[in-house]
Amino acid sequence: MHKRLLLLSNSTNVGEDYLLYARQEIQNFLGASVKKVLFIPFAGVTLTFDAYTEKVGKVFKDIGYEIEAIHRTDNYHQVIKQAEAIVIGGGNTFHLAYWLHKTAIIDIIKEIINNKIPYIGWSAGSNIACPTIKTTNDMPIIEPISFSGLNLVPFQINPHYTDEVIPHHNGETREARIREFLVVNPDVYVVGLKEGTMLKVEGSTIKLVGNQTMRLFKFGEPIVEYDSNSNLDFLLRLFRSE
Amino acid sequence: MHKRLLLLSNSTNVGEDYLLYARQEIQNFLGASVKKVLFIPFAGVTLTFDAYTEKVGKVFKDIGYEIEAIHRTDNYHQVIKQAEAIVIGGGNTFHLAYWLHKTAIIDIIKEIINNKIPYIGWSAGSNIACPTIKTTNDMPIIEPISFSGLNLVPFQINPHYTDEVIPHHNGETREARIREFLVVNPDVYVVGLKEGTMLKVEGSTIKLVGNQTMRLFKFGEPIVEYDSNSNLDFLLRLFRSE
Repeated sequence: MHKRLLLLSNSTNVGEDYLLYARQEIQNFLGASVKKVLFIPFAGVTLTFDAYTEKVGKVFKDIGYEIEAIHRTDNYHQVIKQAEAIVIGGGNTFHLAYWLHKTAIIDIIKEIINNKIPYIGWSAGSNIACPTIKTTNDMPIIEPISFSGLNLVPFQINPHYTDEVIPHHNGETREARIREFLVVNPDVYVVGLKEGTMLKVEGSTIKLVGNQTMRLFKFGEPIVEYDSNSNLDFLLRLFRSE
Repeated sequence: MHKRLLLLSNSTNVGEDYLLYARQEIQNFLGASVKKVLFIPFAGVTLTFDAYTEKVGKVFKDIGYEIEAIHRTDNYHQVIKQAEAIVIGGGNTFHLAYWLHKTAIIDIIKEIINNKIPYIGWSAGSNIACPTIKTTNDMPIIEPISFSGLNLVPFQINPHYTDEVIPHHNGETREARIREFLVVNPDVYVVGLKEGTMLKVEGSTIKLVGNQTMRLFKFGEPIVEYDSNSNLDFLLRLFRSE
């Protein structure tokens, strides 16, 4: 078996039902052999872990999968080792990193995904799949032990990527923020992943899924736009930055 | 002498010259006794520290003050101890915190401001004046040793505060981000400081300066709007959270 990842920019497009745009892709990705997914709700902040699990559980039930939430289990290490698939939802990336590091499960999740089972993440769940969380858009409401992520791909994702800005306001564009990142991290590639799109990794193959292009940023190089027909496999052969 | 702080939301209003809206207030605040200010450009990322210093230096020269940049000096501790006023500009708050902690000057700056000399900050420079940097809007492009700030005021500031959002996009409102912060930090007050406004602290007195209101957030309490006529001194008597 090879590494399998489905990394979504966002859970839900504006005006649509929760996770609607991704349901068919999630079903195709998990297939018929998976019966139950392990859900990690640690990015949730304003919603309780229970309420978050219920919300996600409804969607997964609709497409034929049972859900088990890690916070309701006694032995995190064991439940991860026995998981058929792992799902990490969005929310606040710092909160997610805080709990993954504090509970010391980050390495065991990484190991099992690298060796065996499919991973689905959206928003914070896609950020944490990267070498670090340094390209998140979230507010640092809690201080994690480390900014390191699951390092499942050798590049950074900026989820919810957009070229739009708040009118009459001085906040940086997303591009300007990523350019700041590149100055400090000149060896690292950053994928600007627009809402409604996702990256699908199957072993040494990676594809963009969705109707919008993605933007690839690298220090000192022009920004390149790719679409769902592009061959992106070189992104998996990058040297690992951390 | 008492503690004196001028904490600006932003450097520049849209369409105006650099620091224009704040020049008169900075001049009133520093007065005639200060001749030279010590500038700390560590929040700068896409601009070099030298270029940043030149840009800020021009404005301070226009209003009658010489500028000295800390990165051009040999002994950071000594130059801070001899400073007549300290100025920390905006940029990336994580980059600023990284360098203040790495150079181990954060405590000595705090000490001198608490005891003697005036402090001016904008954007990241206002965030770092708080107990922590946990209410910044910036991307975590570099991992600081700690999220702790100068702790010059016992509450958090969210600079560039706005109620506007990017149209047709799922990013959280600023209010939603601050509400996430409050869930994890229920004892901490957060000031949403809109662009074009600043907080001026003179000993036990604090005033909002500018034509826009500020919003005060606390977990479990309604949001309160204050204007430049409001008595805000209670904000300086809050128990210190960290």
